[in-house]
Amino acid sequence: MFGVTILGNNSALPAYDRHPTAQLVTLNEQLFLIDCGEGTQMQISRYRIRHSKIGHIFISHLHGDHYFGLIGLITSMGLLGREHPLNLYGPAPLIEIIELQLKVADTTLPFSLVFHPLEKEGLILDHPKYSVACFETKHRIPCWGFFITEKRNPRKIVRDKAIEYGIPAAFYDQLKVGEDYLTKTGEIISNELVTTPNLANSTYAFCADTKYTESIAEKVKNANLLYHETTYLKDLEERAITRFHSTTIQAANFAIKANATKLLIGHFSSKYEKLDEFLQETKAVFPNTELAIEGVSYRID
Amino acid sequence: MFGVTILGNNSALPAYDRHPTAQLVTLNEQLFLIDCGEGTQMQISRYRIRHSKIGHIFISHLHGDHYFGLIGLITSMGLLGREHPLNLYGPAPLIEIIELQLKVADTTLPFSLVFHPLEKEGLILDHPKYSVACFETKHRIPCWGFFITEKRNPRKIVRDKAIEYGIPAAFYDQLKVGEDYLTKTGEIISNELVTTPNLANSTYAFCADTKYTESIAEKVKNANLLYHETTYLKDLEERAITRFHSTTIQAANFAIKANATKLLIGHFSSKYEKLDEFLQETKAVFPNTELAIEGVSYRID
Repeated sequence: MFGVTILGNNSALPAYDRHPTAQLVTLNEQLFLIDCGEGTQMQISRYRIRHSKIGHIFISHLHGDHYFGLIGLITSMGLLGREHPLNLYGPAPLIEIIELQLKVADTTLPFSLVFHPLEKEGLILDHPKYSVACFETKHRIPCWGFFITEKRNPRKIVRDKAIEYGIPAAFYDQLKVGEDYLTKTGEIISNELVTTPNLANSTYAFCADTKYTESIAEKVKNANLLYHETTYLKDLEERAITRFHSTTIQAANFAIKANATKLLIGHFSSKYEKLDEFLQETKAVFPNTELAIEGVSYRID
Repeated sequence: MFGVTILGNNSALPAYDRHPTAQLVTLNEQLFLIDCGEGTQMQISRYRIRHSKIGHIFISHLHGDHYFGLIGLITSMGLLGREHPLNLYGPAPLIEIIELQLKVADTTLPFSLVFHPLEKEGLILDHPKYSVACFETKHRIPCWGFFITEKRNPRKIVRDKAIEYGIPAAFYDQLKVGEDYLTKTGEIISNELVTTPNLANSTYAFCADTKYTESIAEKVKNANLLYHETTYLKDLEERAITRFHSTTIQAANFAIKANATKLLIGHFSSKYEKLDEFLQETKAVFPNTELAIEGVSYRID
């Protein structure tokens, strides 16, 4: 299971019971939290998510609507007795703020908070089953997007065949990466006889806050699901440029450039109460678009 | 109109849609915010309060459940174009945290944030119609309570009499403070002829987070409304002592010592879903007690 659940889809000012940015990526049993606006811990409770399962938190940038809820979530994890480490990725000054807030409260966390400052583009987390890379977006202050890959083995085992050829289960992991099997009698069982090609990797691109920037599309090429902000409807393109944000049409054009399978739009300005025009305008250019709605999960594969 | 509206009545962990501490004191047209836990700006919207009317914010101490919502509220005030000054009272390191968070966001507030560090007990705000004093409570880190007084003039004008004696309206403010009137012909109109004694001042004592400490009662003597925390029911007195918090019975005994007219209890631990036992236990010792319920306003006079 690879998917993303929206906990906050609004821009800076909370409004109409929409909350500032926070997204929870589920990757098998792992939870990754991307951004953590004020009230995220309440949203996590509201949607009955177990925050003990969050192993990694990624903060795109240090505008408050993307991280003011982080210190509350971290201290609550501590109060609830978390003991396993929490990995935190974000702009370097983030850890200074958190450490200052813990110090004045005379609080020592009962778990290890491992901070990874974002400094250059590239892989920031690499695991046999998934990886996360970061890339720069174009915003008023330094801002990072995240590209999450669910890694699939190149081959899938055809179990009946593998049994028929007498291949021991201990060798299955090697079959999945494409190796042939050598029997005790010296016979080679070709990999193709007992496996079929697997599906390609699945990817989620979170493009954070950004003005429309085509060069970023190259960094998130072919994403299965692409999240791009649409702070404004198309008529406010001038304002979007001035404020380093994007419109519906810009997000749609970006998705075309990136060759995304599906586009997810969010970070709606609180000047808009209704969101249906966001969907109409974006779909007119990129039909496979969905609104990021709080509490809703979107499949990535 | 002098009253307090509860925006958050829970202790550290938000639960059961109860929020961390925040209270809004209404004093005529003035709004004072006391403490500002995470999500306070959303609570302010929920109860349709105009935060532009908040002129003074008082933060009792630097545990997160009492101030993590402050930076969000302040930046939202900025985004909404506030121009008039905001006065902030709290432990000295608070301003360092706020300034760091504004700096990393490259944000300049469009209004003046006037910080008043809490350093010693006594008056921190004095106005002809109200005053606020702070006092130390006993908590794990430095913590301040607040004593808010609505000042009343000692005398109330009997308008018919004042007109009958030909006293010009321009002299009314002097009548209210007890002065006699000297007519142009040199006759003295005694104050008692045209005024009656006014009601006494009204006071609200906010005792913040604290372990049971009798000596504090002297500092909030005769409060019309006394807010005292009851983090735990009476059976957890040992835990209350260890954690520098109070129980129902302790709050009730404190209200007796302080000779309070009415007691308001809050800061309920998230281990309790239902609150009725808090009220029962406290009322058994101090009958004129009310639960602090979110969204409810309590009159102070």
